Amino acid sequence: MDLIKKTIEKITPLDTAAMSLAQARQNNLTKPPGSLGMLEALSIKIAGITGKEMPKIERKTIITMAGDHGVTEEGVSAYPREVTSQMVFNFLSGGAGINVLARHVGASVTIVDMGIACDMHDDPRLVNRKIGFGTKNMACQSAMTREQAIKSVEAGIRVVEEAAEDGLDIVGTGDMGIGNTTASAAITSVVTGISPFEATGRGTGIESSAFERKVRVIEKALSMNNPDASDGLDVLLKVGGFEIGGITGVIIGAAANKIPVVIDGYISGAAALIACLIAPQCKDYLIASHLSVERGHKAVLNHLNLKPILNMDLRLGEGSGAALAISIAEAACKILDEMATFEDANVSEKSA
Amino acid sequence: MDLIKKTIEKITPLDTAAMSLAQARQNNLTKPPGSLGMLEALSIKIAGITGKEMPKIERKTIITMAGDHGVTEEGVSAYPREVTSQMVFNFLSGGAGINVLARHVGASVTIVDMGIACDMHDDPRLVNRKIGFGTKNMACQSAMTREQAIKSVEAGIRVVEEAAEDGLDIVGTGDMGIGNTTASAAITSVVTGISPFEATGRGTGIESSAFERKVRVIEKALSMNNPDASDGLDVLLKVGGFEIGGITGVIIGAAANKIPVVIDGYISGAAALIACLIAPQCKDYLIASHLSVERGHKAVLNHLNLKPILNMDLRLGEGSGAALAISIAEAACKILDEMATFEDANVSEKSA
Repeated sequence: MDLIKKTIEKITPLDTAAMSLAQARQNNLTKPPGSLGMLEALSIKIAGITGKEMPKIERKTIITMAGDHGVTEEGVSAYPREVTSQMVFNFLSGGAGINVLARHVGASVTIVDMGIACDMHDDPRLVNRKIGFGTKNMACQSAMTREQAIKSVEAGIRVVEEAAEDGLDIVGTGDMGIGNTTASAAITSVVTGISPFEATGRGTGIESSAFERKVRVIEKALSMNNPDASDGLDVLLKVGGFEIGGITGVIIGAAANKIPVVIDGYISGAAALIACLIAPQCKDYLIASHLSVERGHKAVLNHLNLKPILNMDLRLGEGSGAALAISIAEAACKILDEMATFEDANVSEKSA
Repeated sequence: MDLIKKTIEKITPLDTAAMSLAQARQNNLTKPPGSLGMLEALSIKIAGITGKEMPKIERKTIITMAGDHGVTEEGVSAYPREVTSQMVFNFLSGGAGINVLARHVGASVTIVDMGIACDMHDDPRLVNRKIGFGTKNMACQSAMTREQAIKSVEAGIRVVEEAAEDGLDIVGTGDMGIGNTTASAAITSVVTGISPFEATGRGTGIESSAFERKVRVIEKALSMNNPDASDGLDVLLKVGGFEIGGITGVIIGAAANKIPVVIDGYISGAAALIACLIAPQCKDYLIASHLSVERGHKAVLNHLNLKPILNMDLRLGEGSGAALAISIAEAACKILDEMATFEDANVSEKSA
């Protein structure tokens, strides 16, 4: 718990002086002020996060955290549980969606075993932070112990701090875990106040009967565990997941190190809800990559007061939306850095 | 007119066999089918356009066409007319928004003088296709002659065909022209049937009184010229612009050469309306990069039945939205090309 506390103490408000300078520069670039919309807003936010008038985004990584979920026993997913480890091997071989998109945007991918349900044989390409062999079935008991919840968040903090050791300009979060839209829906329902039904989507693609079952399982998990909506760790341990705890730690650690953190879809969003309960100061450091097809995601972004950069009907997870959005954040910073001013280019300004 | 006719005759329907193969491959990649949403749809569309099951996007260019508008005499813009040529010099020096964003996505920029109102001194970095020194004031007469309209479209065809000589996998369109949101609003009103008021936005940033004047100018131009909504060339010559004619030609020429064409915002959208009146077969070759802040743009995209990739409150023009969207189209094709299949990666498929 000490590491979490110390990390939170390092989080400062955004640097408003850097933001004012960035805003002034945006207004002086050779374009009608405001005409690059969200690109301008993004560049100013990143100036505030980093404390730099003209931040550069060169060193980029996606941290994709994997974990299994005991709740898959209830038949809430269209895919068998083994797919978590199989997909992690696919990540390690470079053949998954996140690998393709991260390569496209020039980001590395850090794959973390936060709690896959099988032995991953110490693969050197995989960061081993395993808290357990999958969570317990939250429909019958707490998903994990309080100690495991703390450990998972601490592991996330350490992973992002290690990634930042050689310099890191932006981090994206991603997830892999069969069953984790069920956990995310439970978290979203508790924290935002929407019903389990409203928070539940079709995940990897379940049909109607499985969808109804998923809603009932979430209702059962919430009534049985009764998580405290004001206590992020309590929500995490009762209905969360090890990879969700890990992403929570990445968010807190990134904020403490003044690194913009681009959250992917529903699972990263649920982790962000928990992170902002534990450390409300994190919120300003978050960039929402996209609006997921998972319908509860909208409530997550509204609760966090974040406007997604993309809305492309994505629902893959892994950090796929975060990768695309990182490239747009990079473009936003290049606008601030590389565009000529009216004076540089000898262009007439707007008539009074 | 011969060149336009011959070019149109070359346009074929999309290759449905290639699209079926691409769709089948998407369904077999290691992700829940459909989970990459618009990325999947984009890759399949590009397969249909190019006739390739796994199209690659490597050679990219943005064609940014510049022209002046006689209607600026009416005080419809926040910026003086000289800004068109000043910004073109800024493009040539690499300091404008489009230069930064094109570099970011690895695209070249082709800058074309379609009708700037001053002598551009034969700058070798500028493609000279000047049809005239700006259009006439459409509030008083036709913006151009029928011959000029044909010439502008033919010039656009030639520009894209020259760009394609050494191979071109995708083309983006862009514009520069003080006054051209006024022309685009007039075109949109005629072709889609929305009122001049509904078609008019704030362009580079005019205030309320100038906005009302802009609406009245468009109403006047339409009632005076009475363009034939079924005749693309008639609309272009009466209320269009030289750069809009050029972009129209780029669209027709790209379709004839099976090159996906990513249209930027409101001005490129107005050109697409004209292109699809002249050659309705073009429509399938269009990719809408973004939804502009210019409020008439929504009607344009609805009319063309296109869903924009981005919605980032952009209103710069130049091809800025097209550049960002080209990178996403490239990512979509890489997904199709580079991701492992379930079989390759030994990942279990969805339960029945």
